[in-house]
Amino acid sequence: MNALTPAVSTGPLPASRKIHEQGTLHPQIRVPMREISVHRTAGEPPVTVYDPSGPYTDPTVETSIEKGLARHRHEWIATRGDVEAYDGRHVRPEDNGFATGERLTPEFPIRNRPLKAKQGKAVTQLAYARAGIITPEMEFVAIRENLGREILQGKLQRDGEAFGASIPDFVTAEFVREEVARGRAIIPANINHPESEPMIIGRNFLVKINANIGNSAITSSMAEEVEKMIWAIRWGADTVMDLSTGRNIHNIREWIVRNSPVPIGTVPLYQALEKVGGIAEDLNWEVYRDTLIEQAEQGVDYFTIHAGVRLHYIPLTVERVTGIVSRGGSIMAKWCLHHHRESFLYEHFEEICDICRAYDVSFSLGDGLRPGSIADANDAAQFAELETLGELTKIAWAKDCQVMIEGPGHVPMHKIKENMDKQLAVCGEAPFYTLGPLTTDIAPGYDHITSGIGAAMIGWFGTAMLCYVTPKEHLGLPDRNDVKTGVITYKIAAHAADLAKGHPAAKIRDDALSRARFEFRWEDQFNLSLDPETARSFHDETLPKEAHKVAHFCSMCGPKFCSMRISHDIRAEAQKEGMAAMAEKYRAGGDLYMPVRDADAAEPS
Amino acid sequence: MNALTPAVSTGPLPASRKIHEQGTLHPQIRVPMREISVHRTAGEPPVTVYDPSGPYTDPTVETSIEKGLARHRHEWIATRGDVEAYDGRHVRPEDNGFATGERLTPEFPIRNRPLKAKQGKAVTQLAYARAGIITPEMEFVAIRENLGREILQGKLQRDGEAFGASIPDFVTAEFVREEVARGRAIIPANINHPESEPMIIGRNFLVKINANIGNSAITSSMAEEVEKMIWAIRWGADTVMDLSTGRNIHNIREWIVRNSPVPIGTVPLYQALEKVGGIAEDLNWEVYRDTLIEQAEQGVDYFTIHAGVRLHYIPLTVERVTGIVSRGGSIMAKWCLHHHRESFLYEHFEEICDICRAYDVSFSLGDGLRPGSIADANDAAQFAELETLGELTKIAWAKDCQVMIEGPGHVPMHKIKENMDKQLAVCGEAPFYTLGPLTTDIAPGYDHITSGIGAAMIGWFGTAMLCYVTPKEHLGLPDRNDVKTGVITYKIAAHAADLAKGHPAAKIRDDALSRARFEFRWEDQFNLSLDPETARSFHDETLPKEAHKVAHFCSMCGPKFCSMRISHDIRAEAQKEGMAAMAEKYRAGGDLYMPVRDADAAEPS
Repeated sequence: MNALTPAVSTGPLPASRKIHEQGTLHPQIRVPMREISVHRTAGEPPVTVYDPSGPYTDPTVETSIEKGLARHRHEWIATRGDVEAYDGRHVRPEDNGFATGERLTPEFPIRNRPLKAKQGKAVTQLAYARAGIITPEMEFVAIRENLGREILQGKLQRDGEAFGASIPDFVTAEFVREEVARGRAIIPANINHPESEPMIIGRNFLVKINANIGNSAITSSMAEEVEKMIWAIRWGADTVMDLSTGRNIHNIREWIVRNSPVPIGTVPLYQALEKVGGIAEDLNWEVYRDTLIEQAEQGVDYFTIHAGVRLHYIPLTVERVTGIVSRGGSIMAKWCLHHHRESFLYEHFEEICDICRAYDVSFSLGDGLRPGSIADANDAAQFAELETLGELTKIAWAKDCQVMIEGPGHVPMHKIKENMDKQLAVCGEAPFYTLGPLTTDIAPGYDHITSGIGAAMIGWFGTAMLCYVTPKEHLGLPDRNDVKTGVITYKIAAHAADLAKGHPAAKIRDDALSRARFEFRWEDQFNLSLDPETARSFHDETLPKEAHKVAHFCSMCGPKFCSMRISHDIRAEAQKEGMAAMAEKYRAGGDLYMPVRDADAAEPS
Repeated sequence: MNALTPAVSTGPLPASRKIHEQGTLHPQIRVPMREISVHRTAGEPPVTVYDPSGPYTDPTVETSIEKGLARHRHEWIATRGDVEAYDGRHVRPEDNGFATGERLTPEFPIRNRPLKAKQGKAVTQLAYARAGIITPEMEFVAIRENLGREILQGKLQRDGEAFGASIPDFVTAEFVREEVARGRAIIPANINHPESEPMIIGRNFLVKINANIGNSAITSSMAEEVEKMIWAIRWGADTVMDLSTGRNIHNIREWIVRNSPVPIGTVPLYQALEKVGGIAEDLNWEVYRDTLIEQAEQGVDYFTIHAGVRLHYIPLTVERVTGIVSRGGSIMAKWCLHHHRESFLYEHFEEICDICRAYDVSFSLGDGLRPGSIADANDAAQFAELETLGELTKIAWAKDCQVMIEGPGHVPMHKIKENMDKQLAVCGEAPFYTLGPLTTDIAPGYDHITSGIGAAMIGWFGTAMLCYVTPKEHLGLPDRNDVKTGVITYKIAAHAADLAKGHPAAKIRDDALSRARFEFRWEDQFNLSLDPETARSFHDETLPKEAHKVAHFCSMCGPKFCSMRISHDIRAEAQKEGMAAMAEKYRAGGDLYMPVRDADAAEPS
């Protein structure tokens, strides 16, 4: 693959087209959605679904990786009049791990001057929300979240258990503003990432999922990472974290951000560590601060900051079965021990806030002490750190910064809810963003499943975003197929959570697919599924012929045993008979009603 | 593949050997377990795990499909002196769907005279338990369930939420007897299946899983089905249901039962329907009764009987989105409507009990009206049938028959617990045996995952056995890989449930694997996992070299970013410093303790 013109996955999904809904407060905004058409025999409208895939699935838009995506938010940001462009930091050799010549990933062809807040201004969505301003970003996410709910106006039946969440029947832009203002939701939207299509992360909105990508010292290139990002959002990733730790971190990230319609998150500590040659003890505030500014200027939308790893918590991890499993957490723990002092992240947290505030970089407060095994779940170290994350949340809020909180990890089912409840209590309902959790340790190779179980449950309990886990977790680096499997698994978990929470529109897609199933509309069944290609290919393995896609029986049972086919006969019968009446007669008893004891009296002819 | 000598999967799993524990009450019993050895550097004993795979994984036993497995239970059964051998029913052409010549699957070479209870005797484990008799089967399952618990004697810490289950610290044969006597557990063990290694299904024991196999009108042969059964138990299936619906049902089943160390379940209605040419209306009690006896003589251990589909419940399904999705349920509903009467299963239920009682065939009371979509979950039809299953349970118990109850289906997370609670209340704590449930309808191709989520949860809530769902569900017939994926997914769900319920020994394997992970014992990590082959191959995709299997860093992060490696440095540091003391100092405060507000005062050098 040519690094300069990577081939990326484009084109619509089967039977799908991109549609846009316009704003009213802000008529210039166009909110993308995916419309899935169904067969005319269904006599149903098409199904509209949430669509984070960006212009790559829109054949009417020509995308070019070298040009990057349209900077449609630029005007919204400029109009607010509170930012200024400046030359910005110069790229240094250490930003790319001193890669040179052949090994150096080329710079992204276009260089835009970065924006930052004018002196004294806070340019965060939180600051605007508190000021009572409904930004285009807020109206955008309101329309986006609402999808489907219009058609339910009036005939809405709520059904679910939301554990204290307050999911509205209809999402107004004002509701979004309120939720952001009280810190219960965030809109990660760096002013230097104008290519992004705004999305919201909060307990009262659709459950979101994150996919991790990134190269490592061991493998992969810019082209692969850009394609991985586009591939992940094609299947439904709402945000993408670039966890690169190898060379060329700066340049690879630039290519990713310029081409990403979803928020990009990073762990700045990884790049900072590369800049000091991988020696944790050599890290210092200057190098770290420089890295924050570097990434903020590039447009990174949220930073994972492991500021909750306090010096006196480290001893609490010593007796653990798996110690500290967060990379950032272990790096900071090592630094703290070596220098025998609190981490510079904790000590400089307010300055970090000042930087985030000037670019609207959201915080993802890292759980550096999360458990790495069932044995270590919900232990003293984990919950001590959570308390500190609660403290830091208040400091960030005081600085008008948007915050979410990272959560575990490995947790058996009976200990999952405690994590959610404690987080809500300690962190003032700031959005929770969890990795899994994995509900058992015994299935390496299947940790998308061990964690998908925990993710669905914690999503139901109130987690706002689920960080995916791929089948390669603990074993290796995910390839393209692993990324897809991880994303689909987490879309399942997130959707199962939305259903259980009673999200008003969540059931629309389930019902449409179930009707298609019952009416043997095979094509619709494939097209309405999360992964049409896989559904179709599995069906075709058993019944390859086109004819079978209109067959009125299930390929699993064959005609004689198709329960659904028989159900249709029953329904026909019912119309003939007037079942309700019939049922009454039977319920009333009579000669057809045989109490079980009279078995012998009842020989059918 | 030659139909007469099918190649089946044999040989031990990596680093594993078959061990046997002897009985004390019944010294002749030898309970098989799998011992997984760990690397000597671990300084740990081997890990012993539950093993349903039978002699196929024991290199010291020579297996031959034509001979079948050793009939080790024969002596136990004969010794009881309450059974007699007889000629039994003659195989008829319709038993094999009138298959002839090339299309006829050859008969199993050996024909044993079937056993049945002597006049008036009940030969069920329930009858013995009620009589205060501890059978070899009961001691066998006690030892089998106990596995691992011995080493916990004394140092046992219970940790879990069991929702009213009473899981003992240690399982005695007497405890097994009591649980069976009160109907809270079953030991499916047809006296004509002496090849089986007894297992128990009940809320106070390990959660079990079932794998479905079976040919259909459309595809597959005896050789494939026997291999599918052996393949399924190799990966952990505790029971196998033969759901064949095509030709050769009788002969294929004979090959399966004679070679199966696990209980075999069936849905006799499927074969009965084949005998009447697939016309539901033509079914009648005689043909059905004949089929029950045919299968009881072959040694089928449990029957799914859809006797809960009452005539007046059928109208309740007419407004459903997906009608009736149980094959058996839809067939009986059609029969009931056509004849305008209660089903012969309901009316002849006591006679069915008399047959089961004479062979010890356990009931799996079928949920013919289970929901087939999220929209239909927990509806009137489903719960009406459940009430009837409760009635039938009492009748079966009065006849000394063992009973479990089948459950849904498709259920969103927030409606799962209601299913468990109602079943426990209505069916007198008879074991619950559920299909999934699937927690969303939108992911055909991934329904092992949509259902694995629901299975883990309902298993935690108290379901005794989980019927697997493969990736092909709704789309096609599972192949070898689908069967394995389904089994592993359900082993994960069952184990996650055991952990959450606080099963005393469940955590042993998680902890052993986690220690291996933390100590970079890669081989142990693979060998202790549910699927060593997949774990190893995933690892090798990223780090193929043998050297990397002793590498002291995680293949995902590379050396510099390996949190576990850093944790070891921290632990070393800790030993040097005496962390506990250190921690105290910090907690007490002092110059190292920097409140976050003094950020500036704290520049590291």
